[in-house]
Amino acid sequence: MKVALLGPEGTYTHQAAEKYFQDLEPEFCSTIEEVFKSDVDKKLVPIENSLGGGVKDTIDLLRQREEKISAEVKLPIRHALISGEEEISDVKTVRSHPQALSQCREFIEEHDLEKKEESSTAAAVENLESGEAALASKVAAEVNEEVHILDENVQDDDSNVTRFFVLNGETSEGEKTSLILEPGEDRPGLLGSMLSCFSGHGINLAHIQSRPTREGLGEYYFYVEAETGRGENLDKAKKCLETYAEVRDLGTYMEDDSQ
Amino acid sequence: MKVALLGPEGTYTHQAAEKYFQDLEPEFCSTIEEVFKSDVDKKLVPIENSLGGGVKDTIDLLRQREEKISAEVKLPIRHALISGEEEISDVKTVRSHPQALSQCREFIEEHDLEKKEESSTAAAVENLESGEAALASKVAAEVNEEVHILDENVQDDDSNVTRFFVLNGETSEGEKTSLILEPGEDRPGLLGSMLSCFSGHGINLAHIQSRPTREGLGEYYFYVEAETGRGENLDKAKKCLETYAEVRDLGTYMEDDSQ
Repeated sequence: MKVALLGPEGTYTHQAAEKYFQDLEPEFCSTIEEVFKSDVDKKLVPIENSLGGGVKDTIDLLRQREEKISAEVKLPIRHALISGEEEISDVKTVRSHPQALSQCREFIEEHDLEKKEESSTAAAVENLESGEAALASKVAAEVNEEVHILDENVQDDDSNVTRFFVLNGETSEGEKTSLILEPGEDRPGLLGSMLSCFSGHGINLAHIQSRPTREGLGEYYFYVEAETGRGENLDKAKKCLETYAEVRDLGTYMEDDSQ
Repeated sequence: MKVALLGPEGTYTHQAAEKYFQDLEPEFCSTIEEVFKSDVDKKLVPIENSLGGGVKDTIDLLRQREEKISAEVKLPIRHALISGEEEISDVKTVRSHPQALSQCREFIEEHDLEKKEESSTAAAVENLESGEAALASKVAAEVNEEVHILDENVQDDDSNVTRFFVLNGETSEGEKTSLILEPGEDRPGLLGSMLSCFSGHGINLAHIQSRPTREGLGEYYFYVEAETGRGENLDKAKKCLETYAEVRDLGTYMEDDSQ
């Protein structure tokens, strides 16, 4: 099955896609925006990392475009230090995606490395120069013969997990629903009133992110994930929310409990 | 006055510092983390951009460290396209800080440019190669003789404003207070209950961000900015919040209305 996702070969998104799809034919894109704009119907995008937080590009593009979330995939993230150098003491600079750099903050400080940001962990391996190392998946080291693994599991925390969404797949019964809430105006207590639509109908929020509407400082929209089936309670909560904000339903999906 | 801030010369943080401090002696640091760890007592850090959203590194470091916010500074952001090339048609790649790249998304798409991420807008100018351009302040072009300005005001939106915080300056009366709320546990309706501590005491929230605690997927702390003086209502709201979460007061400061 053809699936658009963030490349190149060996990214964590690639690993997550191999975990979820039985017969994966990956269409590698160079940015999350290209994934959303790809002609390939099915897509896989990162939504949140347990250390770095929400993935802003994905949240903004879910708001702008008409894709439907059909499944959640969780992948434990294990970064390796990959280099052409023989010793870690010869490494002065570390290249990686900003999220991976932020996930290995303690390791980078301990070895006093300079950080260089790359568009993906796999691109960091491709762009390595002398005296440099990359933070990436072990798979990314196997693609390139000139480099090897200097150290494994260098992330700050082994609870490092990234969540991905499958877009436009088969819809099924689900436990979680993602919504975009656009209040349009700001007034005291508005967010609290909106949240009472969830608690008042017995629905727990698993996740909330405020994001700028790009229309001026202090104007926000909200991305929320509610723990609910697609039942009567969700419909009532949505009716309640519509009295405060424009509501977009991004889809209902099963929680990934596979870890 | 010595102030630690994000360098090199010509960054927007540098411009904001020149706007606020009369007798600025800048101590340029290469990351926001270095600014926080600098021996220089007074610091200036970006907290939010109207297009890109909250600055994650600053929010996480405000939580981790013991700095006090003493003032807010707002700076309108105007990006120039800076290059050694003569014509925009000779430019294939654009380098800049991820926030600036996200703020010029429409311009980058229109000219079909490849994006390369840099640690600062000023570093993007320094690292320019043939066929490339940087998105940075006009001031950053003046520092380097080999480049010139190909286009001005290329940001998607003229409402592009960045807010900065002055840390450890003179404390004074203020209208806004920043707090870190750490619930420690998750339960249905908890965020709504915390927000009712503000609305119940007549305090409006200007800003709220959820950030991962780095202790596992789905565990968050909250950064909030409340519109209030340092009066009795704030004390009552904090007592109410303390029944739900650990509360850290990051300081009270005046809103910057200078634009």
